Amino acid sequence: MSDETLAELGESQALKRTVSRLRPSEYELVGSGDDSALIMADGSFLVSTDTLVENHDFRLDFSSGFDLGYKAVATNLADIAAMGGTPTALVVAVVVPGSTKISFLENFADGLQAACDELGSRVGVVGGDLAAGENLIISVTVHGRLDEVAPVLRSGAQPGDLVAVCGNLGRAACGLELILSGKPELVSAYDDFVSSQLRPKPPINQGVVAARAGASAMLDISDGLITDAWRIARASSVSIELTGAELKGYQAMLELPAQALGQNPEHWVLQGGEDHALLATFPPGAQLPKSFKAIGRVIESASPGVYLDGELIQGLGWDSIRGRA
Amino acid sequence: MSDETLAELGESQALKRTVSRLRPSEYELVGSGDDSALIMADGSFLVSTDTLVENHDFRLDFSSGFDLGYKAVATNLADIAAMGGTPTALVVAVVVPGSTKISFLENFADGLQAACDELGSRVGVVGGDLAAGENLIISVTVHGRLDEVAPVLRSGAQPGDLVAVCGNLGRAACGLELILSGKPELVSAYDDFVSSQLRPKPPINQGVVAARAGASAMLDISDGLITDAWRIARASSVSIELTGAELKGYQAMLELPAQALGQNPEHWVLQGGEDHALLATFPPGAQLPKSFKAIGRVIESASPGVYLDGELIQGLGWDSIRGRA
Repeated sequence: MSDETLAELGESQALKRTVSRLRPSEYELVGSGDDSALIMADGSFLVSTDTLVENHDFRLDFSSGFDLGYKAVATNLADIAAMGGTPTALVVAVVVPGSTKISFLENFADGLQAACDELGSRVGVVGGDLAAGENLIISVTVHGRLDEVAPVLRSGAQPGDLVAVCGNLGRAACGLELILSGKPELVSAYDDFVSSQLRPKPPINQGVVAARAGASAMLDISDGLITDAWRIARASSVSIELTGAELKGYQAMLELPAQALGQNPEHWVLQGGEDHALLATFPPGAQLPKSFKAIGRVIESASPGVYLDGELIQGLGWDSIRGRA
Repeated sequence: MSDETLAELGESQALKRTVSRLRPSEYELVGSGDDSALIMADGSFLVSTDTLVENHDFRLDFSSGFDLGYKAVATNLADIAAMGGTPTALVVAVVVPGSTKISFLENFADGLQAACDELGSRVGVVGGDLAAGENLIISVTVHGRLDEVAPVLRSGAQPGDLVAVCGNLGRAACGLELILSGKPELVSAYDDFVSSQLRPKPPINQGVVAARAGASAMLDISDGLITDAWRIARASSVSIELTGAELKGYQAMLELPAQALGQNPEHWVLQGGEDHALLATFPPGAQLPKSFKAIGRVIESASPGVYLDGELIQGLGWDSIRGRA
């Protein structure tokens, strides 16, 4: 296959070569190619959107087209899982420079499909849009269904609830530092951590498991454990007390790359985003799913806060407009 | 209210000031602020997405924030109407330079809401995303429901069907030429046509009317009557025969601005996009809804085509990557 630019191929040919690499969603009644797609639902549907912008959210010298497709799907699916839902359908809008090679877009489509297959099983891309612009921008909207569970909001945490996490903490942040180190030997020695940054694998199917186990509040950790714990605390008008000892295991797993980089793994575990682990609270009587690990407790408090071993701790946060807050 | 830049305000403040101007969708069970929104559905939902890119799809010296919000909603709602559906919920992703004033984003939100109110009545924005980038990009995903009608696809036209249109033909193209003329006196004399370009008002509620009347195929005319008639012809494996005499009325309405500009209004009617009129086909026995005007007939043919008074005619089309094809 020739590797022409999108400007040479034109929209319709470029779309044809890209869309042909995608398999339909199993929930699709009418797929792409008409004015709208038609997707099965069951009384309601979940919807969330997330945008990745070149040089703000990713750099093309670090991420391949495949990586970006994979990550765009993974981060979006996590927003469905975090409600207790099962992903059903994605629409993908891409803005690309006309000088982009078609092979880049084909690899991007392969990344979209790989993430659907590995993380969501029955989900698929049901529509999209391709437009020309100065920079690469990927805007994904994801849909999901609640299979006989109530939606798990951020606002349901109650004093006495257990705080638990499912998935990685700090691995994606570690991977980013490895990439930014500019040392190919470290990137290659710890490529597993690098891939957690480039192609995160959030525990998508554990969202509904948490909902069925009675999770009272949940979100996916996109901006760091502390920052996202604050979100639950504020939405639920409670405080969250984290136990440092329960987080040691996550740090231990980052020890080797941290030493190689001369950095502190505790910082990654507490403040590192982009792992999209599920952070949930469970009522005292609930049976914690095996995939979740207890890391703290919800406590009553006059003003919401997040505490680590009794000490109030602030998230570093992430501001999409300003960058690191 | 102070008119700070988005970079000065930060994402969370900017979002708060924008979202507070929007009213919820009447179909919303969980609104913005959690990981996903939850929207009522009825066995299935329609979804479509469309992206507007600065300097490709619009220019900020021609369009205000309000105009862009209005147009982004209008064009997306038309994709739901064109399936025979009723719009229920929108998610809006915006990429903006940090130097953008908050008043621009507030006006944009007002435009989103105005279009929801005027064109969709019960629809609303249920979520979104705000990110920093070099250029303004607006990516909207729209959802809808089919109220006890089957989806009207592009592929259902049959020989013998009537071809009919509901809405404007050529007005948006006329408006664009007025703007591009750079003559303020013409823009002001024909401001009604200019507003058809900047704030199109597609006949959103007539989509379900057409579906109930038995429309066999339908789409909204985004790229011009001829180009979009070709889409139905190809999808349905038929030809479409348009009757010039039936299109004279649309031309007559454009006569004055066309004379002032020294241009041919027939070209706008046949090739002008962005009006988002509904183009539909109806079986011979169907009662044409009052809002639709017959402009031709579906005919059998060995290879699909669009004919005007017996002559094969090509659309000029629009290629999102290359521009005018």
